[in-house]
Amino acid sequence: MQRPLSQDRPLSGVTVLDLTHVLSGPFCTMILADMGARVIKVERPGEGDEARGFGPFMQTSQGASSGYFFSVNRGKESIALDLKNEQDRDILERMLAQTDVLVENFKPGAMDRLGLGWETLSSQYPQLVMCSVSGFGQTGPYRSLPAYDLVVQAMGGIISLTGPEGGPPVRVGTSVGDLCAGLYAAIGILAALHERVRTGRGSYVDIAMLDVQAAMLENAVARYQVDGKVPGPVGLRHPTVSPFGAFRAKDGALTIAVGSDAMFEQLCRSLGWPEGGRDPRYCTNAGRTEHLAELTAEMERQLQAATVDEWLVRLRADGIPCGPVNDIAQVLRDPQLRARDMFVDLPVEGDRSMTVVGTPLRFVGRAAPEYRPAPRLDQHRDALIAEFGANNNEERSAA
Amino acid sequence: MQRPLSQDRPLSGVTVLDLTHVLSGPFCTMILADMGARVIKVERPGEGDEARGFGPFMQTSQGASSGYFFSVNRGKESIALDLKNEQDRDILERMLAQTDVLVENFKPGAMDRLGLGWETLSSQYPQLVMCSVSGFGQTGPYRSLPAYDLVVQAMGGIISLTGPEGGPPVRVGTSVGDLCAGLYAAIGILAALHERVRTGRGSYVDIAMLDVQAAMLENAVARYQVDGKVPGPVGLRHPTVSPFGAFRAKDGALTIAVGSDAMFEQLCRSLGWPEGGRDPRYCTNAGRTEHLAELTAEMERQLQAATVDEWLVRLRADGIPCGPVNDIAQVLRDPQLRARDMFVDLPVEGDRSMTVVGTPLRFVGRAAPEYRPAPRLDQHRDALIAEFGANNNEERSAA
Repeated sequence: MQRPLSQDRPLSGVTVLDLTHVLSGPFCTMILADMGARVIKVERPGEGDEARGFGPFMQTSQGASSGYFFSVNRGKESIALDLKNEQDRDILERMLAQTDVLVENFKPGAMDRLGLGWETLSSQYPQLVMCSVSGFGQTGPYRSLPAYDLVVQAMGGIISLTGPEGGPPVRVGTSVGDLCAGLYAAIGILAALHERVRTGRGSYVDIAMLDVQAAMLENAVARYQVDGKVPGPVGLRHPTVSPFGAFRAKDGALTIAVGSDAMFEQLCRSLGWPEGGRDPRYCTNAGRTEHLAELTAEMERQLQAATVDEWLVRLRADGIPCGPVNDIAQVLRDPQLRARDMFVDLPVEGDRSMTVVGTPLRFVGRAAPEYRPAPRLDQHRDALIAEFGANNNEERSAA
Repeated sequence: MQRPLSQDRPLSGVTVLDLTHVLSGPFCTMILADMGARVIKVERPGEGDEARGFGPFMQTSQGASSGYFFSVNRGKESIALDLKNEQDRDILERMLAQTDVLVENFKPGAMDRLGLGWETLSSQYPQLVMCSVSGFGQTGPYRSLPAYDLVVQAMGGIISLTGPEGGPPVRVGTSVGDLCAGLYAAIGILAALHERVRTGRGSYVDIAMLDVQAAMLENAVARYQVDGKVPGPVGLRHPTVSPFGAFRAKDGALTIAVGSDAMFEQLCRSLGWPEGGRDPRYCTNAGRTEHLAELTAEMERQLQAATVDEWLVRLRADGIPCGPVNDIAQVLRDPQLRARDMFVDLPVEGDRSMTVVGTPLRFVGRAAPEYRPAPRLDQHRDALIAEFGANNNEERSAA
């Protein structure tokens, strides 16, 4: 009953003109490319996307190559265009006429100054979907302020919730300010493409990194309103459910997440400490949360008897949600991620390759995603000029 | 030249049958509802979505109401159905026949056991787009293991990157394991809807929270491969760019993010410490990173002269990327988020209202998003039965 694997991809036939740089925009367009969209990255002549200058650098026979750039630009074509040069601008306009989606993440106002603002573009190309990603959005008092991931993480509140209990707040260790804005940008673009089928018209999606941070505060806003206390960092544990955190075993820590009284009793049996499940202090979640320090000490006394790996086998068999606390080296070896083909080796410059993390967007019954390496600056110039250049384009129109 | 505001929404006309609970799935379907999709939430009779039992609770004249549930279920309709009861099952099937998207986040295998697996549903409803969100995905050795946000955050590596420098790793203070899986689910669903226009067929999107965590490790995987060092937590600062972190002023901390030598010179002038910009230790990013402790001490000596708000005015005027480190109370007062209408008061039970964070998906030139409160359990039963119930449906087919 298995249908044959389809080579078609969900976004086959969609062309994206990518005027983005560094992280939020490129992450968005990489996601679109992973699903089969054609992404044409327009870069500044000379240096290109400034992320090409960000470490870590891989040494190849062609010189240093940015691992930072490589990890968010796979599957794209590159052309270097000076948007203030008439001839280059002409190429851009010819590409725009055949583009479904334009994505940019300059500071608000920059596209207008280039004559590429939404009002102008939508009157020329009414089918165009445009998305701008910026720190603070296209409106509001902060619209023209510069922002980096750190700035919006701190302004958006997530830093105030992250860190050791009572200790200093810390930044989330990845650029979730950029990455999550890129995810919302992809959602907005796809919703606009969906609507275009009905209306025949594109639309303009305005994504602000700060808005996105606020939208992802989860229940912290509700907690603050209900109990009036400003939520702070709580380390590794859950603020209101116990035991729900990391606990030390013989050779390291593992997470254990117990969501019910019955599961707590099972955990105690699994730990070889059945009396814990009958202790009146620990019978309810409220009691376990109140006596968490003693409970943690008791649990860790039992956990000292075996290694993390041994405990994971035992606890998983007993249905307890648990797992290792993996560092990056361990993540790269994780058997589940390996089984899901989440790591992909891509050639960098012929002689070197690099492992990148694949797409988590899995369309069941389809051929595996095809990944192509990130482009060298201007790598696809000749092909793109041939395809979109003046003469060729006229021939095409005449055909 | 302003076009009139359109009342139409990007996903107007899309019907989503929502079999999800707690967080990742409901967050996904809320995003779809915010863009105009009709979301029908099918809940267990009796208790409904278990998040209805999660604090914080608002006291209303109708009893305690979960702020947790309320903050991720706005704009949905609710019907309680026992999927093992024949009559209720019949209602579900009638709804399925008119559904575009089915979303669920049970443990893998549960939908198959209910007779609602993808193979079955896609043969009955070939137009259906289905999305499953689970901890580890529908394939691989861990597919049937239970997972919570904490477990996948720890397995996926983000915890190993988050925390004070050299100190204990901590959990990200929001459930990014769930929330980001919900964002990817929305992306996959919208891409599948896009493809359906071309192919006439739905498809099945399999989202694993662990895959999503791996896909969002940003440059950590590249850094590990290039320099061979396992990245660890670095507190609030940037691992390789300085000064890029939080610094103490007279009454609190602010972030300052300097990305170039020229901007560092400007920062020193703005701080009233122009000699800093000429100090040979601090002329290059490498030097500033090497001497970060002394540099921080010097900067904080200057910053003691004024308050955070005073410094923000001065530094923003000088073009330095900077911002406050906001707690949740401060986020709710942020002038930019207020100007962007990111906070919305919604009635909870008539007599009480709650502030929720609105959508960051802004479609320019459209009417503002309309938000409706989260539903009471089974609130829309009568209307839904009338619309999809047996007799009514036959009449409709006959019409």
